[in-house]
Amino acid sequence: MPTETTDSSAATSPSTPSAVTVIGLGAMGKALAGAFLDAGHSVTVWNRTPGKGAGLAARGAVVADSAEAAVRTAELVVVCVLDYDASDAILEPLGPALAGKTLVNVTADVPDRARAAAAWAAEHSIDYLDGAVMVPVPVIGTPDALLFYAGPGDLFARHESVLRALGGKTVHVGEDHGRASVYDLALLDVFYGSMGALVHAFALARAEGVDAADVAPYIATITEILPRILKPGAAEVDARSYPAEDAGLGVMAASVDHIAHASRARGLDSGQIDGIKRMTDRAIALGHFGSSWMANYEALLDPRD
Amino acid sequence: MPTETTDSSAATSPSTPSAVTVIGLGAMGKALAGAFLDAGHSVTVWNRTPGKGAGLAARGAVVADSAEAAVRTAELVVVCVLDYDASDAILEPLGPALAGKTLVNVTADVPDRARAAAAWAAEHSIDYLDGAVMVPVPVIGTPDALLFYAGPGDLFARHESVLRALGGKTVHVGEDHGRASVYDLALLDVFYGSMGALVHAFALARAEGVDAADVAPYIATITEILPRILKPGAAEVDARSYPAEDAGLGVMAASVDHIAHASRARGLDSGQIDGIKRMTDRAIALGHFGSSWMANYEALLDPRD
Ligand SMILES: NC(=O)c1ccc[n+]([C@@H]2O[C@H](COP(=O)([O-])OP(=O)(O)OC[C@H]3O[C@@H](n4cnc5c(N)ncnc54)[C@H](OP(=O)(O)O)[C@@H]3O)[C@@H](O)[C@H]2O)c1
Ligand SMILES: NC(=O)c1ccc[n+]([C@@H]2O[C@H](COP(=O)([O-])OP(=O)(O)OC[C@H]3O[C@@H](n4cnc5c(N)ncnc54)[C@H](OP(=O)(O)O)[C@@H]3O)[C@@H](O)[C@H]2O)c1
Repeated sequence: MPTETTDSSAATSPSTPSAVTVIGLGAMGKALAGAFLDAGHSVTVWNRTPGKGAGLAARGAVVADSAEAAVRTAELVVVCVLDYDASDAILEPLGPALAGKTLVNVTADVPDRARAAAAWAAEHSIDYLDGAVMVPVPVIGTPDALLFYAGPGDLFARHESVLRALGGKTVHVGEDHGRASVYDLALLDVFYGSMGALVHAFALARAEGVDAADVAPYIATITEILPRILKPGAAEVDARSYPAEDAGLGVMAASVDHIAHASRARGLDSGQIDGIKRMTDRAIALGHFGSSWMANYEALLDPRD
Repeated sequence: MPTETTDSSAATSPSTPSAVTVIGLGAMGKALAGAFLDAGHSVTVWNRTPGKGAGLAARGAVVADSAEAAVRTAELVVVCVLDYDASDAILEPLGPALAGKTLVNVTADVPDRARAAAAWAAEHSIDYLDGAVMVPVPVIGTPDALLFYAGPGDLFARHESVLRALGGKTVHVGEDHGRASVYDLALLDVFYGSMGALVHAFALARAEGVDAADVAPYIATITEILPRILKPGAAEVDARSYPAEDAGLGVMAASVDHIAHASRARGLDSGQIDGIKRMTDRAIALGHFGSSWMANYEALLDPRD
């Protein structure tokens, strides 16, 4: 079970000042460094392309000349770059310099990259936490900012008060270093699935002569249903039991087919809805015509060739 | 602009009692007939397979022996069956019997089927409204029940008070008979896109050793963002202008790619996310790396071959 930190004052009340190094000064890295500064910590920064630390320097950060110099100044090193190809490129030469320190990589990527990074860190006697940032730049440092961390629980506990400068919702999701990325991808999966469908819904409406602004207010009646489905839907998937209440999967699949059909009739790309239809077709072939929507889980586990 | 009826007492306060015929006694047809009965109307029902009207008869409905006998008893005929293949099969022989009456077909299908039904009705001097039911059975007849209607505005106005027995949110969306279906499909598109992604997110989590119940509470932080995106997103699509605020489409596409990659690495069906990736790839090829997410609209309009 994840341990959520619910004290909403956390993001604003500074912990004991300590030294933190931030590697990577893209949009997110800058925001993280700024939040550490706001919380009263001593911050050293470094970025591959020079010149990105000027604003932070004006606020009190030290801009290091090299990544190695940067990591030598603090016991806690936070990395936030594009992906793990980028963080590996930076970190690989720094094994000896990081030995005995705590490395927290909040760069987004897939779970196996996080696990590989943890294995590399272990080889170099580096204490390692993997993280994921779930909010956009303007939310960093506020009580609402959600960040996941995975790795040894005692290591997280040791750095939690400093890490909470980044967000009031600072959550340790487990010991497996891949778990922060798993939570990240699960949340983003729902985000991009919904956002992909939203732009397609607007395209379908406009292709049929209806402005996006006309349907948008009614789409809220749909998006407001979703939060209520999360808990019961998760319980069905975890139990692999899918009792239908009102409409069964077969009836819902017919609606999916209407959308795909109408989309193709107007020459729109229908890749996403076609993918959903492949899933519902497969679930029905597996015997789930009369099950609930969540029975599609079985289709995802056992796709058609 | 659609005219929304916002008086929430509408679904409960009966209008002047009148005679209504309901054709189709599946789960939804029964609920519609029951709501008309609750509102004090005289209800005649018919269903292809006999025996489905018993419960309604006990509540005062008349069960007709034939579809023709059913439509002859009332000036207002509401049809709710599986799809337009089904409603066409029932209605085609009834042209003469329906002449001069008002037919309201709330069966779900694609916009062009609704338009074809309207053309058929016009040929037979039948006043026609096309409708769509946006809520599940238990919500029918309540102030929250949303139903769309399309067709002549004066015809809708004439029957609005009776139709409002079905739901407090009884909305006329325009004169084009296809529009109720367009609104229906746009809303369902977002629903199934979100629901397809949700079951995939749970599958991905479980494949990585995380129970669905563990990630579900955090997915709420995502679903709660969606209502806020509807209005600004619609404005971008309608204006075909996509200024990026925080993260641009290119960065978001990298996340989409992480999800697809992680899904395939675990042998899960990734049809939906692959469809989304095809869209983002196309949008980037069209020059929208730095645009907002809504620029995917251009990719949907102009798919790759
Ligand atoms: N922005 C957001 O709203 C947001 C929200 C949640 C999570 N995230 C995640 O946060 C991470 C950083 O995002 P961002 O928005 O800061 O991205 P960004 O603005 O594009 O910055 C990318 C950073 O990565 C560095 N980088 C890229 N390739 C590199 C390489 N091969 N070697 C060394 N450094 C390299 C860049 O350095 P140079 O300056 O030298 O190119 C820069 O510091 C990503 O994983 C992203 O998914 C971002
Ligand atoms: N149920 C919901 O929660 C819900 C929500 C919103 C919208 N809707 C829409 O409402 C409509 C009806 O749904 P439902 O849930 O009532 O479906 P249902 O319970 O499966 O009932 C289907 C109805 O269609 C009739 N039918 C099917 N094929 C026919 C044919 N070839 N000729 C004559 N009648 C035929 C059936 O008659 P028999 O009894 O003779 O088979 C039955 O009356 C659908 O368009 C659905 O998308 C339903």
